[in-house]
Amino acid sequence: MNASSPREAVLKKRVAAAVGGELRAIDDMIAAQIASPVGLVREIGGFIAGAGGKRLRPILLLMAARLAGYRGPRAVHMGCVLELLHTATLVHDDVVDHAPLRRGRPSVNARWGDDASVLVGDYLYAKSFALMVQDRDLRVLETLAQATVSMTEAEVFQLERKRAGITTETDYLQIVTQKTASFISACCRIGALLGESPPERLDGLTRYGLDIGIAFQISDDSLDFVADQARLGKAVGADLREGKITLPLIAALDRASGPERERIQHLLALRVLDAEQIEEIRLLVMKYKGVEYALDRAHVYAQTAKSALHAFPESEDRETLTLIADFVVDRDW
Amino acid sequence: MNASSPREAVLKKRVAAAVGGELRAIDDMIAAQIASPVGLVREIGGFIAGAGGKRLRPILLLMAARLAGYRGPRAVHMGCVLELLHTATLVHDDVVDHAPLRRGRPSVNARWGDDASVLVGDYLYAKSFALMVQDRDLRVLETLAQATVSMTEAEVFQLERKRAGITTETDYLQIVTQKTASFISACCRIGALLGESPPERLDGLTRYGLDIGIAFQISDDSLDFVADQARLGKAVGADLREGKITLPLIAALDRASGPERERIQHLLALRVLDAEQIEEIRLLVMKYKGVEYALDRAHVYAQTAKSALHAFPESEDRETLTLIADFVVDRDW
Repeated sequence: MNASSPREAVLKKRVAAAVGGELRAIDDMIAAQIASPVGLVREIGGFIAGAGGKRLRPILLLMAARLAGYRGPRAVHMGCVLELLHTATLVHDDVVDHAPLRRGRPSVNARWGDDASVLVGDYLYAKSFALMVQDRDLRVLETLAQATVSMTEAEVFQLERKRAGITTETDYLQIVTQKTASFISACCRIGALLGESPPERLDGLTRYGLDIGIAFQISDDSLDFVADQARLGKAVGADLREGKITLPLIAALDRASGPERERIQHLLALRVLDAEQIEEIRLLVMKYKGVEYALDRAHVYAQTAKSALHAFPESEDRETLTLIADFVVDRDW
Repeated sequence: MNASSPREAVLKKRVAAAVGGELRAIDDMIAAQIASPVGLVREIGGFIAGAGGKRLRPILLLMAARLAGYRGPRAVHMGCVLELLHTATLVHDDVVDHAPLRRGRPSVNARWGDDASVLVGDYLYAKSFALMVQDRDLRVLETLAQATVSMTEAEVFQLERKRAGITTETDYLQIVTQKTASFISACCRIGALLGESPPERLDGLTRYGLDIGIAFQISDDSLDFVADQARLGKAVGADLREGKITLPLIAALDRASGPERERIQHLLALRVLDAEQIEEIRLLVMKYKGVEYALDRAHVYAQTAKSALHAFPESEDRETLTLIADFVVDRDW
């Protein structure tokens, strides 16, 4: 993270004060869950657990649960469920994308091979599933079942679009909504369910999660064109290298001249791009302000997200969730 | 299947008479579940659904439910859950094993690539999960959660043993029990749960499933050394080619001379074996009657499985399950 941002320092302090202890308890619970008798599980599990990560999903769950008035042990339990499930998707994503890096270190597939990554990903899914069943709440299980179907279907859709070599803004928003946002929405919804929120508030937190999820993913995709590799922990242009067409490029292609568009389509059809070709695409995105367009869209989603919190009265916790909505867009991590 | 076996014809007839209608209903439900708006899901899902397969797991569930006195719609629903989950594991297994064939046709990975196979496997897991949550029975969910953790952990353990180039009989039995048998046991247990069986019968069907699961996998692994490719739908020696060390080879290695054992260890360490080397290993297994040893073990498990059914009084359905126990060992498919 960029320590020079005072707003970020404020947010981190607020989150730590509200849920810092619970976040540490989640880390401990994850460590206990991956303490398998199988050496390869322990080895890969320990590597993943040690990688840090933003912990955005457990933070949102914990904050949503607080806002909904819940104080009890289920939030830590569910935080562990969500983080294991999220990690399983990352491990499989990196296999599919042949990603060499994750959070600034070699990816699991780069280090242990695709076969081990597929199987350890499946194991993490299974552990997450077993833990959520232990919680014994069918509303929570339904929320996660729907989110998981949505996510996995969107992953296949994204691959299909990538293979077709074309993604429209409509396709892109559908992928982002189903893949990233439905899960982040589920995190917030589960917080509301723990707090036994009435329908209006349950709906408010569910919509808040969906909208910040979309804003978060658009912002993440924009960073691929501008971020500092050391800070982001993955190479700039990584999405392009994998043939992923995201909003900044879609916006630039919409505004580019006919010959420019044809040139980019030609490059994208090559599948394997070298550094020079990636830079050429990046410059076109800069020229047509694709990143600015995307971040404008992200800001609109963040605003809508904040409005959805009005189902709750003003409080410290609501203010923290409001700050998170701003922060998922204007960040450099 | 070998149509010349009269015992098999009898068994098929009994199964069809008892649960044929429900098996067709499961097929219809699977088709409805994979009717996704995403073209690639429909395409791959349709290909998998059209592949047939033995339907051993839904048959066991349906027969166990009948034996436990259950008559109702949940058995078809759960049969669909089990078949989707089983299919998800097959799709991922074939990626991990680089298997070119499945049920006599190209595997999903051979036809659509590893990336699509990983993601469609995840989607099938998710659909199975969503359907089982719809059933709203926490005992069933706990049974499947435990089986899934057990299976996925065993998959990683199997890979670890494969990489180490050595598998003992103890390791082998642990893998078979955790990977194949725990799931088949879960199928039978769920049948008993649907029938609200008292503890002794619930336990009987759970143990029956575990023991026929072990017998089934040992028999399956033995077929790799002797079966007819056209009938089995995969190449003979496929496990060896993938570096999988199974009971017939473990038994033969235990009895081989020092130089023979060294020679085989040397071949296995090569990782990639040609047809001649595979034949050399197969001949050693024949020489030391490794397949006979393995099938003897399988018969013992099948016997124990049959005894476990004595928790139920004699009936047509108990007799059918007894015949299935014999059949999973003495089969050529």
